[in-house]
Amino acid sequence: MDKLRSALEQLQKSDMYPFHMPGHKRREIDYLTQSSYLKDITEIDGFDNLHCPEGIIKEEQEFAASLFGAKESFFLINGSSVGVLAAIAAAKDSDSEKKILMGRNSHKSAYNGLYLWDIRAEYLYPRQYRGVSFVGAISVKEVERALSKSNDYGAVFITSPTYEGIISDIKGICELAHQKDIPVIVDEAHGAHLGIFGGDDYFPLGAIASGADVVIQSLHKTLPSLTQTAVLHIQGDLVDVKKIKSRLSMLQSSSPSYILMESISACLHACDEYREDYRNHYKSRLQSFYKEMKSLSRLKLLTNETLDKGQAEETMKDPGKILIHVGSSGLNGRQLYDILRERYHLQMEMAAVDYVIAMTSFADDEEGFLRLETALKEIDQEASGSERGHLISMEFDRPEAVYTIRQALEAEKEQVPLSESIGRISGEFLYFYPPGIPFLVPGERIGETVPDLAREAKNNGLILQGTEDSLQKQILCIK
Amino acid sequence: MDKLRSALEQLQKSDMYPFHMPGHKRREIDYLTQSSYLKDITEIDGFDNLHCPEGIIKEEQEFAASLFGAKESFFLINGSSVGVLAAIAAAKDSDSEKKILMGRNSHKSAYNGLYLWDIRAEYLYPRQYRGVSFVGAISVKEVERALSKSNDYGAVFITSPTYEGIISDIKGICELAHQKDIPVIVDEAHGAHLGIFGGDDYFPLGAIASGADVVIQSLHKTLPSLTQTAVLHIQGDLVDVKKIKSRLSMLQSSSPSYILMESISACLHACDEYREDYRNHYKSRLQSFYKEMKSLSRLKLLTNETLDKGQAEETMKDPGKILIHVGSSGLNGRQLYDILRERYHLQMEMAAVDYVIAMTSFADDEEGFLRLETALKEIDQEASGSERGHLISMEFDRPEAVYTIRQALEAEKEQVPLSESIGRISGEFLYFYPPGIPFLVPGERIGETVPDLAREAKNNGLILQGTEDSLQKQILCIK
Repeated sequence: MDKLRSALEQLQKSDMYPFHMPGHKRREIDYLTQSSYLKDITEIDGFDNLHCPEGIIKEEQEFAASLFGAKESFFLINGSSVGVLAAIAAAKDSDSEKKILMGRNSHKSAYNGLYLWDIRAEYLYPRQYRGVSFVGAISVKEVERALSKSNDYGAVFITSPTYEGIISDIKGICELAHQKDIPVIVDEAHGAHLGIFGGDDYFPLGAIASGADVVIQSLHKTLPSLTQTAVLHIQGDLVDVKKIKSRLSMLQSSSPSYILMESISACLHACDEYREDYRNHYKSRLQSFYKEMKSLSRLKLLTNETLDKGQAEETMKDPGKILIHVGSSGLNGRQLYDILRERYHLQMEMAAVDYVIAMTSFADDEEGFLRLETALKEIDQEASGSERGHLISMEFDRPEAVYTIRQALEAEKEQVPLSESIGRISGEFLYFYPPGIPFLVPGERIGETVPDLAREAKNNGLILQGTEDSLQKQILCIK
Repeated sequence: MDKLRSALEQLQKSDMYPFHMPGHKRREIDYLTQSSYLKDITEIDGFDNLHCPEGIIKEEQEFAASLFGAKESFFLINGSSVGVLAAIAAAKDSDSEKKILMGRNSHKSAYNGLYLWDIRAEYLYPRQYRGVSFVGAISVKEVERALSKSNDYGAVFITSPTYEGIISDIKGICELAHQKDIPVIVDEAHGAHLGIFGGDDYFPLGAIASGADVVIQSLHKTLPSLTQTAVLHIQGDLVDVKKIKSRLSMLQSSSPSYILMESISACLHACDEYREDYRNHYKSRLQSFYKEMKSLSRLKLLTNETLDKGQAEETMKDPGKILIHVGSSGLNGRQLYDILRERYHLQMEMAAVDYVIAMTSFADDEEGFLRLETALKEIDQEASGSERGHLISMEFDRPEAVYTIRQALEAEKEQVPLSESIGRISGEFLYFYPPGIPFLVPGERIGETVPDLAREAKNNGLILQGTEDSLQKQILCIK
């Protein structure tokens, strides 16, 4: 029996509502109804070639560029991951050994890029928010401090929005970097919808409109497109586009799926045609949701108003990412997540120690929002009101990078019990999935907080990944 | 207007018959009929995670291993390309600088692997067939000669079957390599069906059954699975599986498509359940086709019997790959291809200078074969019978590798007119697509035949790729 297939068919029959990716929410929007196999072809006459487009794929990529206001755009059928890998290659040019100035809260794929192209990174550290276990934005001041010390950077790399929807001041960061002709690469995997709706009074401006040189967007996360589809945009003349193209073609299948490519173009044409309707529908639905939720007394929705940003005034939050903080409910994030799933059949995107993410898109329907509103009110009323357990700080302890990731991954290693690993140099990544942001990177010296953080997180039901030892009791260290 | 979508819908309405990939032939076999979006999800509870599988994906990968007789198998959602890239990483271990012994007729992705992991290659040259413009198999003697000179190889890498369906003696090659504990990696992208049907009197044995240590198979090429789906198999203990796993997870989207993964498991379960029916149906249809085609007088079908293998007696040809040689028809491959497409609405897989490939799978239907038989008979009768034009030799001129691919791609380069490039060191690949086998690799000295080959091929309607200059008038050379 095919367990994968039957699990997918059972899910289809169930009343489980998706407050998670993909953004099409498993709904049959007109262009989403075709049987995939009928359209699944290869590079036959008239259908162009993603790896050197001269026909319809070229035209559709040009359409994508015009829609987002980019100079050039590329379809990605291996996710934002491959876009991030390829973009980072542009930070290194043949005649120099420039470093990349990179947000430490970057997705694992950015670190993989450092490995593939053997690039040394200097890190930008995000602001810490008060009272929540996720990090905020990269501030302009943080970038300014780094740029004042050195010009020798091949690129600045920022993740905005973050998995939690936190948006950095890309405009301010670009102004600084461009003064020194340093390109800014933005991992906007969670912000494709901002490229369509952004810049009105409700949705913050997208990264292309904010002046970024390279922008990578997942289409499947916040827009109705198939999982694994994404786009990479180029703006200006600061990056070597040919290098990015060649790396994309190196890292993407030489048999790219026409189903995935069609999903990209269909999604973008729909966004172009119905942009205002989609925006208005989405905006008003989110507004009425947040209004309705003002009545919560123990659970707490995190918004631009309620988030305690500390020093990070300039940061914004994407309203499309609903962050439900456990507040004084006495629950932890995992418990809240499980109640929503088991009692209310609402599948959230993820659970952290102290909050849950409900991911929305304009494809969400009224029923989904109503069910979430009812569920949260009931849970809020039933909540004990006792104090929440200890909070895990996601503050990076700024470990010393002794080797580049490439040096570390190619070096000889040995397994060391996590508890005895303090002071050793790690040969592995260590991160929670989701969101997949490593708090330990190969080549870094293992700090005192690491074993505690790992243990504590697992006790709170977070999924720890990255180690060869599936039990995460041991970690590979460099001999 | 969405040109990609409307082109796909037009094709769907047309009577164009697919003698090309994918192997499902755009037919609605039971499991191929679902609307994709309804099943397109992300890593939610109960659906496991491709990048560290512990549930249904783990179980389905174990099923794949048992079906093909492998020790361990991995689902690939970025094509065989990513499997080849990851497998080649295993040829280099941390404490040594071993070379890889690689067939020079490898797909571009193998050369990309050399670049990514900075591995130096020594090449195995395939046998030349007489009277056709494609290369044959890598002979056991060729491997023996190389292994007798040195033991310092991290792996042997062979492509079998080739794009034309030519199969090397993997069993013989493995016996030699294993005597020295050198693992054999086989790019079996075109031979997944041999892993299912192989080993009877009709279909040659697959690479796993022949003893290979790592085998990469495209499922979409010769079996009914979606484009971009593939599997990587491990056998024995000679390769570092953890390294291959980590490289796969580095190079595949962190949002893998469940539509692609379901297509893999559905295809494999169908092959398991109906193996004998599929095999018998496919075998008898191919047999009657070749029998019927014996009447051709000018066109010539290339088979085990009709191919002049010269010294390469031990090689076999996959009957599933129909090679229609222009023979004495007076047509070149492109002309034959165009007639089949325009007059008979039969879309072939590819056209070379002197032959055309019709790709088949067990999903082909009677109508398709009948139309192809009728078309070939008519074309054969109408053919002028005049002598065919000059043949392009695909013989590699064994260029000197001055730099590794990594050194070459990272070096400073300049554009040089192809006609003046002889003797310079190339900074680019040069290959025909399909099949995508480079006759020039970055770091190699450009031989005298290169400019002629490039010009001649283009005059014969072949698609030349690899150069930044889309007109292929210039080539990047190292300064």
